[in-house]
Amino acid sequence: MEDRLRGTDGEDARIIEGRNAVIEAFRSGKTIDRLLIQDGCQDGPIQTIKREARKHDTVMDFVAKERMDQISPTGKHQGVIAYAAAYEYASVEDILAAAKAKGEDPFLILLDDIEDPHNLGAIIRTANLAGAHGVIIPKRRAVGLTATVARTSAGALNYTPVARVTNLGNTIEELKKEGIWFVCADMDAEPMYRQNLTGPIGLVIGSEGEGVSRLVREKCDFAAAIPMKGNIDSLNASVAAGVLMYEIVRQRTETKTSK
Amino acid sequence: MEDRLRGTDGEDARIIEGRNAVIEAFRSGKTIDRLLIQDGCQDGPIQTIKREARKHDTVMDFVAKERMDQISPTGKHQGVIAYAAAYEYASVEDILAAAKAKGEDPFLILLDDIEDPHNLGAIIRTANLAGAHGVIIPKRRAVGLTATVARTSAGALNYTPVARVTNLGNTIEELKKEGIWFVCADMDAEPMYRQNLTGPIGLVIGSEGEGVSRLVREKCDFAAAIPMKGNIDSLNASVAAGVLMYEIVRQRTETKTSK
Repeated sequence: MEDRLRGTDGEDARIIEGRNAVIEAFRSGKTIDRLLIQDGCQDGPIQTIKREARKHDTVMDFVAKERMDQISPTGKHQGVIAYAAAYEYASVEDILAAAKAKGEDPFLILLDDIEDPHNLGAIIRTANLAGAHGVIIPKRRAVGLTATVARTSAGALNYTPVARVTNLGNTIEELKKEGIWFVCADMDAEPMYRQNLTGPIGLVIGSEGEGVSRLVREKCDFAAAIPMKGNIDSLNASVAAGVLMYEIVRQRTETKTSK
Repeated sequence: MEDRLRGTDGEDARIIEGRNAVIEAFRSGKTIDRLLIQDGCQDGPIQTIKREARKHDTVMDFVAKERMDQISPTGKHQGVIAYAAAYEYASVEDILAAAKAKGEDPFLILLDDIEDPHNLGAIIRTANLAGAHGVIIPKRRAVGLTATVARTSAGALNYTPVARVTNLGNTIEELKKEGIWFVCADMDAEPMYRQNLTGPIGLVIGSEGEGVSRLVREKCDFAAAIPMKGNIDSLNASVAAGVLMYEIVRQRTETKTSK
């Protein structure tokens, strides 16, 4: 938690602090990934900031003064510190519109709590090259679009839309109504080669340590495994995502050529 | 170059410096990844160290005194600094023997100048899980088995043998005589899905920036591409390696089940 509050790699340039600066950031339309409010702060300007945060559905964390002082680059946080996104988020509708504009079945990547910005960046990079139409991440717990993510994506963040949603399970429910099937990466499932991964699809990848959470997994239509033949536990999350995405690419390509 | 001399992530714990310590390291059988010798040092002990280095086919670099002083953690390098491998290297014969012991067609991963220790570690991790019998890296220019590689491999380095060779092209020539086919990752080639990747195979992956070098590519029997549909240039090297390895796994599995 401590690392995440601070940003895993000292990206303090994205920190906005002080009451007026934070209110201004919200009002100018900047995307705030996360808002830290000092425990017990209740006065007028703080109430205004909380209202803005609720309006924008921003994640708020309440943090002790000592911790705020540690995080603050200038020491003048006045009880409020905001983390601005390095890139702007898209909406899920934008992503579906991108698929429609290309005349393709939607191909979405959903990430359940990827915490490592290098993995998130590498996954966005692969999503771009595999022809996925967008990436969906949850607001809580996961890493946002920091400068490291942008750099590791090797430019893909300029092309591949990333949407943040409050509840990944609810988003899956909504998207099912659009005719999208959801497959979840699960090492105990049937090998991916034997699953039908064609058509409108959302691929759900879990966190580095724990895989896809139960609540999200239960929303998926089926699960697919990457066959594991070795002695160790698991692939790196970005490698696993790449292998699964390209199995989807293969099946989509083969279906097309066999028509 | 500077970064590589220093180790990309300050792994100074693996540095051995001073004449007696370095001679002792060679004589005790420690694997030295790279030896730095101060420009112009010609005396007896240095000659002894050079002899040991040649005997073990260790890569030697001649470096100005100022640079040696910078690299040296203690400042007492006496004109010689050695980088010890965090793990012991296997031989190519060990890798072939591992395949034979399992009664499987050899499945080798050859890396042409991977410089990022995180990528090397992730590739060894994937090689283990994809059931490859070993990884072959060149002595010159590429990163060796540092502590970062070991950590990023998530334990795979304990199971998957890694061999270092002087000339990757010559090794390919030798292994062709054993009936192994070599496929080179090349973004301009035919898509991997349409290539036959079954049987005894060596997969050659190029460096992060430049792909497989011309001399090595010319030794390969054929090339295979990962289809690229996006706006950016290339996949991360460890993701690309994973996608190609698992296409080989798929083809091997499907051949087996269709028998």
